[in-house]
Amino acid sequence: MPELAELAEQLAFSCASPIGMRERIVLGHGSGGRLSAELLRDVFLPVFSNPLLDRMDDQAIFSVGESRLAMTTDSFVVKPLFFPGGDIGSLAVHGTVNDLAMGGARPLFLSAAFILEEGFPVDQLRRIAASMAGAARTAGVAIVTGDTKVVEKGKGDGLFINTTGVGLVPDHLRMSANQARPGDRVILSGPIGDHGIAILAKREGLEFETKILSDSAPLDGLVAAMLAASNDIRCLRDPTRGGLSSALNEIAAQSGVSIQIEETKIPVREEVRGACEMLGLDPLYVANEGKLVAIVAPEAAGAIVAAMRAHERGLQAKVIGTVGEARAGQVTMKTAFGSTRIVDLLAGDQLPRIC
Amino acid sequence: MPELAELAEQLAFSCASPIGMRERIVLGHGSGGRLSAELLRDVFLPVFSNPLLDRMDDQAIFSVGESRLAMTTDSFVVKPLFFPGGDIGSLAVHGTVNDLAMGGARPLFLSAAFILEEGFPVDQLRRIAASMAGAARTAGVAIVTGDTKVVEKGKGDGLFINTTGVGLVPDHLRMSANQARPGDRVILSGPIGDHGIAILAKREGLEFETKILSDSAPLDGLVAAMLAASNDIRCLRDPTRGGLSSALNEIAAQSGVSIQIEETKIPVREEVRGACEMLGLDPLYVANEGKLVAIVAPEAAGAIVAAMRAHERGLQAKVIGTVGEARAGQVTMKTAFGSTRIVDLLAGDQLPRIC
Repeated sequence: MPELAELAEQLAFSCASPIGMRERIVLGHGSGGRLSAELLRDVFLPVFSNPLLDRMDDQAIFSVGESRLAMTTDSFVVKPLFFPGGDIGSLAVHGTVNDLAMGGARPLFLSAAFILEEGFPVDQLRRIAASMAGAARTAGVAIVTGDTKVVEKGKGDGLFINTTGVGLVPDHLRMSANQARPGDRVILSGPIGDHGIAILAKREGLEFETKILSDSAPLDGLVAAMLAASNDIRCLRDPTRGGLSSALNEIAAQSGVSIQIEETKIPVREEVRGACEMLGLDPLYVANEGKLVAIVAPEAAGAIVAAMRAHERGLQAKVIGTVGEARAGQVTMKTAFGSTRIVDLLAGDQLPRIC
Repeated sequence: MPELAELAEQLAFSCASPIGMRERIVLGHGSGGRLSAELLRDVFLPVFSNPLLDRMDDQAIFSVGESRLAMTTDSFVVKPLFFPGGDIGSLAVHGTVNDLAMGGARPLFLSAAFILEEGFPVDQLRRIAASMAGAARTAGVAIVTGDTKVVEKGKGDGLFINTTGVGLVPDHLRMSANQARPGDRVILSGPIGDHGIAILAKREGLEFETKILSDSAPLDGLVAAMLAASNDIRCLRDPTRGGLSSALNEIAAQSGVSIQIEETKIPVREEVRGACEMLGLDPLYVANEGKLVAIVAPEAAGAIVAAMRAHERGLQAKVIGTVGEARAGQVTMKTAFGSTRIVDLLAGDQLPRIC
């Protein structure tokens, strides 16, 4: 969809003024795209800076005693709270479990903090808590500490959940977004765009012929299977907010490499592709909650793809691109028409409150 | 203030129907009092139950490898965001550092997650981030991972912050709210009510002759000094939401003991006492953010109080009561008039959004 990419480019240009000049937060600051990166770089990193945070991976990894631990946090503000394929409760568990798994960590413990709006129905809270508990059981994590706050009616939006997770990282693993090297292969675990389109369809009351379900799922098992197959995984990312484009752009920028992907190799379900065309969305920018992208050594790619395809969460895994040297930080895509276009960070926020 | 206690009792009675009968969340569910306990007991614990959570301390303590770790989470929805003596940023660091310290943990790492409302001024966010960073430096913790979400205007209230913390617990420590034993002494670190009254005064635009400042401060140093003086500390709590009454009631309930305190021994600043009288509030129910209550073995009380008084955060520390056997779960106070009254859990929410 080259037209949308051009539009995104134009938007990116018009939004390129430094955040110091912006006076107020806009929805795009939560998009996982360019404005989110700006907010992080211009407001948070200058004051919070430390070696663990500055790595800018989806999780911090540190040593305590003899153990290497991963820690990650996410707040969930998804709207609607219940959607085809999941709800804010299961999503809040999967999102944090997956951010731990992307660091190679075995998820162990979660905290759960709720901000409730006065008037929120208690039966909905029960359903959401039960869904969280089920998702935690499936992922083998325990919710060990929590908090509940209530704000006045009109000062929240039903329910927000924060989950923070701690996991154990095997001693030899050193995966990070700065580890990609020229020649590496880019592997995608399955079709993209399901979560974002499922949310949008439910939110806007759209009816598609085929029901589109969120792919919200825990990925720790898939990661364990990949690590059992090979130690040559440089980096894992789950392409959530901002979609595949954000994940690849972050890796390219942090590793100082370029990444080339091929449109024809990227699986998109027919019904998701149709919805995207109808809505004017590019699947590369649409959120996923049960997919991962892996940068791996070229000689290990075959074994890793095979291990992924043997796992229920990676049945359609395949190599979708390669890492290059020139034009550091740039992600390009060879389109179905044979041309090449730049895949930039999302400029604004095409789908607010997706997670 | 016996009248208020009677009112609280009546309210408690009228609110005593099980939560299953309530259809909607009310502000009191976030009070740290009776309704908060009900929500936890009736909605969250039944589905999340596990040995770590069921301990119901302010932090979970678990082993990873050879290390014992503490983990705790809190969301901060305080209103206003800036108040005399602090702001939501420093409060978000102190609150979580203190919940770790109450488990005897040395705070190590924090996560920080922001839910911003569209339109929030970026310069306020910068001030708050700088305040968090300063508080983290003072407490010796690093903010190692974070998240930012944005919700539409009218769907939030400026800014909510979640912090989750991880700390290291010395191997020999076994402090918990279920460890109080008859004969133990109750120690309070200083005057109560400062935080709640500072917030309320600012929120309501009240002018007092003397400015009342929040006591928001990190308590890890005070706890370290106490632990250096004695190993005979059964339990520590910081009396935040719900005030001293909530902290003592939780300990009494979980240890299956009674607690008797003496009103004349509980320090309350003159200006806080005056404000409470004017506003019809009981200082026992007003939040603190830089105080702690300790249950200690009787023979250790002298040494612990001496160690506390030698620390800047415990200058006015003193024994305010004792632990008894009969009437398990009950907290009573000998009033200044010589009578005895029950100090119950807060029934509703006298001061919403205090932290």
